[in-house]
Amino acid sequence: MLQPNLPDSGLPRVVVVGGGFGGISAVKTLRRCPMQVVLVDRNNFHLFQPLLYQVSTAGLEPDSIAFPLRGIFRPMKDFHIRMAEARMVHPQERILDTSIGPIHYDYLVMATGSDTNFFGMTDIQTHAIGMKSLLEAIQIRSFILHQFEQTLLLSDLEEVRSRLCFVVTGGGPTGVELAGAIAELRKNVLPRDYPELPIREMKVYLVESGSRLLAGMNPRSSRKALEGLKGLGVEVILGVSVRAYDGRVLSLSDGRTILARSLIWSAGVRAVPVQGLPESLLQRNGRVQVNSFNQVEGQERIFAIGDIAHSTEDPRYSKGYPMVAQVAIQQGRISARNIIRLQQGRPLEAFHYRDKGTMSTIGRNKAVAEIAGLKFSGLSAWMVWMGTHLLFLMGFRNKLIVFMNWIYRYITFDRGSRIIFRRGPANIEKLRQSVEND
Amino acid sequence: MLQPNLPDSGLPRVVVVGGGFGGISAVKTLRRCPMQVVLVDRNNFHLFQPLLYQVSTAGLEPDSIAFPLRGIFRPMKDFHIRMAEARMVHPQERILDTSIGPIHYDYLVMATGSDTNFFGMTDIQTHAIGMKSLLEAIQIRSFILHQFEQTLLLSDLEEVRSRLCFVVTGGGPTGVELAGAIAELRKNVLPRDYPELPIREMKVYLVESGSRLLAGMNPRSSRKALEGLKGLGVEVILGVSVRAYDGRVLSLSDGRTILARSLIWSAGVRAVPVQGLPESLLQRNGRVQVNSFNQVEGQERIFAIGDIAHSTEDPRYSKGYPMVAQVAIQQGRISARNIIRLQQGRPLEAFHYRDKGTMSTIGRNKAVAEIAGLKFSGLSAWMVWMGTHLLFLMGFRNKLIVFMNWIYRYITFDRGSRIIFRRGPANIEKLRQSVEND
Repeated sequence: MLQPNLPDSGLPRVVVVGGGFGGISAVKTLRRCPMQVVLVDRNNFHLFQPLLYQVSTAGLEPDSIAFPLRGIFRPMKDFHIRMAEARMVHPQERILDTSIGPIHYDYLVMATGSDTNFFGMTDIQTHAIGMKSLLEAIQIRSFILHQFEQTLLLSDLEEVRSRLCFVVTGGGPTGVELAGAIAELRKNVLPRDYPELPIREMKVYLVESGSRLLAGMNPRSSRKALEGLKGLGVEVILGVSVRAYDGRVLSLSDGRTILARSLIWSAGVRAVPVQGLPESLLQRNGRVQVNSFNQVEGQERIFAIGDIAHSTEDPRYSKGYPMVAQVAIQQGRISARNIIRLQQGRPLEAFHYRDKGTMSTIGRNKAVAEIAGLKFSGLSAWMVWMGTHLLFLMGFRNKLIVFMNWIYRYITFDRGSRIIFRRGPANIEKLRQSVEND
Repeated sequence: MLQPNLPDSGLPRVVVVGGGFGGISAVKTLRRCPMQVVLVDRNNFHLFQPLLYQVSTAGLEPDSIAFPLRGIFRPMKDFHIRMAEARMVHPQERILDTSIGPIHYDYLVMATGSDTNFFGMTDIQTHAIGMKSLLEAIQIRSFILHQFEQTLLLSDLEEVRSRLCFVVTGGGPTGVELAGAIAELRKNVLPRDYPELPIREMKVYLVESGSRLLAGMNPRSSRKALEGLKGLGVEVILGVSVRAYDGRVLSLSDGRTILARSLIWSAGVRAVPVQGLPESLLQRNGRVQVNSFNQVEGQERIFAIGDIAHSTEDPRYSKGYPMVAQVAIQQGRISARNIIRLQQGRPLEAFHYRDKGTMSTIGRNKAVAEIAGLKFSGLSAWMVWMGTHLLFLMGFRNKLIVFMNWIYRYITFDRGSRIIFRRGPANIEKLRQSVEND
């Protein structure tokens, strides 16, 4: 019989669900407060999602962008981590149901993040793969490398083409970076590893339904990104969305079809809040309505932060804050502070988002960045991108290994992690199933 | 329809099955010969097996001990790699049946290595896990870490004890190194990561049926290894073998039982030769009888090397050569040379094994080593161990990352890769199934 086995220390208990950027920021802020803090996560590690695309494209080892949660908060007293799935919240009883039993809370911080959103298109959900988890990234890596291996064994040109056709949909930073990195594979890895393959048959598509890439950034950055990707040979299709996909034929909204054995879906994410809150608070994208203090509307003791929090108080963000690490980090901090204030009976502090900048890499050594009103691109932006990512990556060992990999790759054009973990058929449906079974 | 798609270059074709130490050595020796060389492997990487135990115990990332096969031989002409399973050899027709169709050969080098040998004990095969592949090592890592996470959730002391009881069987280098590394986890990681757990309840057993550890080495080294492991708190049980195991209760040949939820099996390996050779050539341990030129007995054009080759010509090795990298490397070289000689109509060269030394680590910073008649132990042996392993590890990037991890770990006592890749139940039977399905 499993049970959370949390000690009763007499202190008020804050339960934080999710060890992403938001959850970690909340726990850190609560560090020196007279509270018992419990962090609940399905995994035992914090995942640095901004670099997932480099794992998918054999540039980084999976372990180097994951950091064990138990290594982050070590000196903290009355702090407990439980590896569990949060299932349902009972606000009346202040109980969180989890896969390891009920946990009582005095304050609850929900930071469960988001998952791939297929917008209800079940055919696409079956045949495409998302890129939100470490396992998915490893699967995509195995899948891409397996396509190359398989293509060697084929004679039918149409089949060769469909296997060497990689379609990424969604023109946000993830899609732009992933498409760029796959195009770099074609340029630098394929000719050396697979001299027998007809490189020219390999195609990389990036399909975006909006009128420009990186819609969250300045039009100038969008243009730079488009130019950069085109320079790498990515076929960027704008103003068009994916209509249907059966694992072989991809149909676009403009009537075009593409023969492709792969579709990587970064066209949308959906918040995954814990069940048990009034339906009326949930947005269509799964986000939960919060007030200016990041409390769930009508719930004094429940906070929601990051990807799952919906707030339109800031006129700059009429559709809610972007689902990025910075928002989660800042909301984590304000929620923790407000919990302390609640406990002390002091007035709460309102959340004000400070946008510290946005950036995206384009291929090997270019990037676009917008920081503090400055817009820059090219090599300098790429250096800033590297520095910032190393700064936020957790753990000295990880920083060192990632940095070394980048330097090595920059000099040699090589990708060290071209490892296929799984054998078995390189079939995206099976990959998805195995991800889901985990 | 898959097919090997190998070009007909008019040159004689050498097919090497297996990209381990032996296969790679054979291919390298054939580098500058007028031959077409085809390397067939189930995986797309060469695995540095001597460091597998460090992946199992969260000390190294999996990618750092795997090196993509396609990166090793890049400048080689008329060389082809095919990711496939070898199934059956037809010596008369000179054809190798594989999962991607038949491959014709002029010469065949079988270097398929070995797998865990459970000696027909099906209960153990069901409930124990071997440590021969990268996936198994990752699974063991997840499994060990999961045991710690699960134990936090238990109240029953007997259940806690059985989850914190790790039994390794087999007192060769793998067993000694693995038991030492798990004991180091207890000493350096558990108290920091799981201050709530009763560390004293964690037990590490090493069960060896022979009268001493490291039977392939000098008795002095065996004694040093035993002392070293005892110093780390490993309970070493000698002269006793595992009789039965149901996933919970482990029965030993001396009548003792141990309550343990895990059994890691490094007590035996079994050669896995390709089917199709006369049964009479196969030893009980799966090895194939070869002559002094490393040709399979009675087969001029088929060579067997490394773990799958059986030869008792050398009186020092009356039971056949040890299943270690050095034998495979040297036999790979001699087989390749003999293929060239055969092709040139010159007399063949006989194999003479040069034992370059044996070594094994014991825990964090000790080792025993026997090199060129010298026996040494302690820190100096550990330094030699590190140097040699870095030397043989393939790829500059891997050397650098492994070296950095070792330095980092030496200074901080930390293990960076404490990542549980898979969620789901930490159940060793399920782990085994998922390994086998891959």
